[in-house]
Amino acid sequence: MRVSSRGDVDPFIVMDVMAAAARAEAEGKRIIHMEVGQPGTPAPAAARAALARAMEDGPLGYTVGLGLPALRARIARLYGEWYGVDLDPERVVITPGSSGGFTLAFTSLFDVGARVGIGAPGYPSYKAILQALGLETVMIQTEAQHRLQPVPGDLPDDLDGLLVASPANPSGTMLDRHALGALIGACEERGAAFISDEIYHGIEYERKAVTALEITDKTYVINSFSKYFSMTGWRVGWMVVPEAHIRRIERLVQNLFICAPHASQVVALAALDCEDELQANMEVYRRNRALMMEGLPRAGFDRIAPPDGAFYVYADVSHLTDDSRAFAAEILEQAGVAVTPGLDFDPVRGAGTLRFSYARSTEDIEEGLARLARFMAAR
Amino acid sequence: MRVSSRGDVDPFIVMDVMAAAARAEAEGKRIIHMEVGQPGTPAPAAARAALARAMEDGPLGYTVGLGLPALRARIARLYGEWYGVDLDPERVVITPGSSGGFTLAFTSLFDVGARVGIGAPGYPSYKAILQALGLETVMIQTEAQHRLQPVPGDLPDDLDGLLVASPANPSGTMLDRHALGALIGACEERGAAFISDEIYHGIEYERKAVTALEITDKTYVINSFSKYFSMTGWRVGWMVVPEAHIRRIERLVQNLFICAPHASQVVALAALDCEDELQANMEVYRRNRALMMEGLPRAGFDRIAPPDGAFYVYADVSHLTDDSRAFAAEILEQAGVAVTPGLDFDPVRGAGTLRFSYARSTEDIEEGLARLARFMAAR
Repeated sequence: MRVSSRGDVDPFIVMDVMAAAARAEAEGKRIIHMEVGQPGTPAPAAARAALARAMEDGPLGYTVGLGLPALRARIARLYGEWYGVDLDPERVVITPGSSGGFTLAFTSLFDVGARVGIGAPGYPSYKAILQALGLETVMIQTEAQHRLQPVPGDLPDDLDGLLVASPANPSGTMLDRHALGALIGACEERGAAFISDEIYHGIEYERKAVTALEITDKTYVINSFSKYFSMTGWRVGWMVVPEAHIRRIERLVQNLFICAPHASQVVALAALDCEDELQANMEVYRRNRALMMEGLPRAGFDRIAPPDGAFYVYADVSHLTDDSRAFAAEILEQAGVAVTPGLDFDPVRGAGTLRFSYARSTEDIEEGLARLARFMAAR
Repeated sequence: MRVSSRGDVDPFIVMDVMAAAARAEAEGKRIIHMEVGQPGTPAPAAARAALARAMEDGPLGYTVGLGLPALRARIARLYGEWYGVDLDPERVVITPGSSGGFTLAFTSLFDVGARVGIGAPGYPSYKAILQALGLETVMIQTEAQHRLQPVPGDLPDDLDGLLVASPANPSGTMLDRHALGALIGACEERGAAFISDEIYHGIEYERKAVTALEITDKTYVINSFSKYFSMTGWRVGWMVVPEAHIRRIERLVQNLFICAPHASQVVALAALDCEDELQANMEVYRRNRALMMEGLPRAGFDRIAPPDGAFYVYADVSHLTDDSRAFAAEILEQAGVAVTPGLDFDPVRGAGTLRFSYARSTEDIEEGLARLARFMAAR
């Protein structure tokens, strides 16, 4: 059978690390997981209890394509609570994770061959999804002086769209209102669509992240219950789209997905009112971040910046290696700590970077930092 | 903001019926739902109990992209139980519903502009997904003498792929081993990929459905827990792919979906061992089918054939109307029965057809048939 070229998407380089970690664990070794991109905590207890009840109350068949009306309304209310933005619930679309949101946004906005800009370093699946949908990825090499975020001067004139993330993965940096507004303005000048990936909103340390909806209604905002709400495996997220796009998105959801998982929508609705448990998770991230900011430089990973949000530290290790893949393998083998080679986020400069996640327990972070310190001292 | 042309997919015509039904119900009327494409029953009780336990045991984070190994192994075993096929679990991929399976299959197999054949009448989302992915739909007008399934003589020489469903939606007809083999052979001659939609397998009345895997390993088989396993809203299904395609599908799943919902995979695994409850559902479908086969002709819908599988009767009403949309609206308004206009399944000849679903309770079917009889008598 012939296969397509668009289906030849790149593998995740971290998969080699994860497979090697699994082999080491099968041999009885304890591995500290600083490669993971997800919380170690479950969905909030009250949210799981809500699903346990719902499973007894009805069949949990398909929901309407745009999602449970109560969930859409509650998310709209969140925009008031978090940002002071008055949002029409009709503009909220429940998606099967942010992954589903990207596919919906890209198919709604871009015809085959369109040029869509993303920043490097960035989430590796952006490029793969664009490729699978027949779109052209325009990689924007961001600069350290711009905190690894694109700026208007980086954008070519012929862009059809721009996707930015704030807080970003892997850097954790945020765009403030001015920087975000400048990018939105630059897109408007070019007639390019602006897509804002806000999946790490809620996980912020010094100040609240800014949503693109504070600046414009002419944007697609993509978010998810995976990170702040600690629901990765439930595959439920949301988009906010311009009013004029609701009907086309509804038809795309119905046809591409039918709906987001009903059970996950039930959990998500209840999770929105589990602030205490979610803030307890945030306390762990805060503590872990402080440990990382102190422990990584002490171990010798001193080219780092404090992340504004998310739960990653992106380290420049170009003075230590020119092969982050081999370096990550060495750290796993010798220190028993799994980390992500930067090549997954930036095929050009990622040979000299590593991403450390601190999403797991504080005990794990302490043990991981101690191991990293011993590894570097012995090197 | 500009939008894409590929995102301009057709609306479901039945949505008008469903909206009108919802308005009538809001006014206090009782509507019988023969338009629905899903069981009225929940996931099996023991399967829901398995999830209730799992929610207390661990965080239900991301699974690996290809799905829980135990679920893949159990599905492989199902092929032994149902068809006597010995299947390597590695070839089983867990997907976010059959919807996710279509997107994965199409992106893995077809580059932009490829020509993919589907039969009319057929599931309306096939065409919409193909369009959203930049593919060209080749509509094959099937014939009543071939029981509304494509035959090799219908296939153009320049097809890149063919997608068939057996049992089919809306007709309920199945391809026997000979007919399925002939289509697979015709695709091989053309170098076209063969995709087999087997989502209604398990819901059969006279004989077991044939899987394409009984004939060839060079095929993508798409299935789901939605119908026989009564799990529509859980959005979990599976694909079986050729061994040489596993790695590319793994990368596509990881990037496009990350994974199918973890909780739904837990429910699905347990549902595979809930044969008693699922067979009790089948008894209801069997009883309902017999009632439909007797009651529809008596009411005046006499141009029907007994469905081999699924839970639909597709009726030729071209002697009664040349506008199935208006006719469905009239039936809803006057009889209080919601049915699906054939135009959703066949834009050409569907103006003269209706689909009646018998997926709901036997009480509903009896009441619906009585109402249809009164409506037709008064007409």
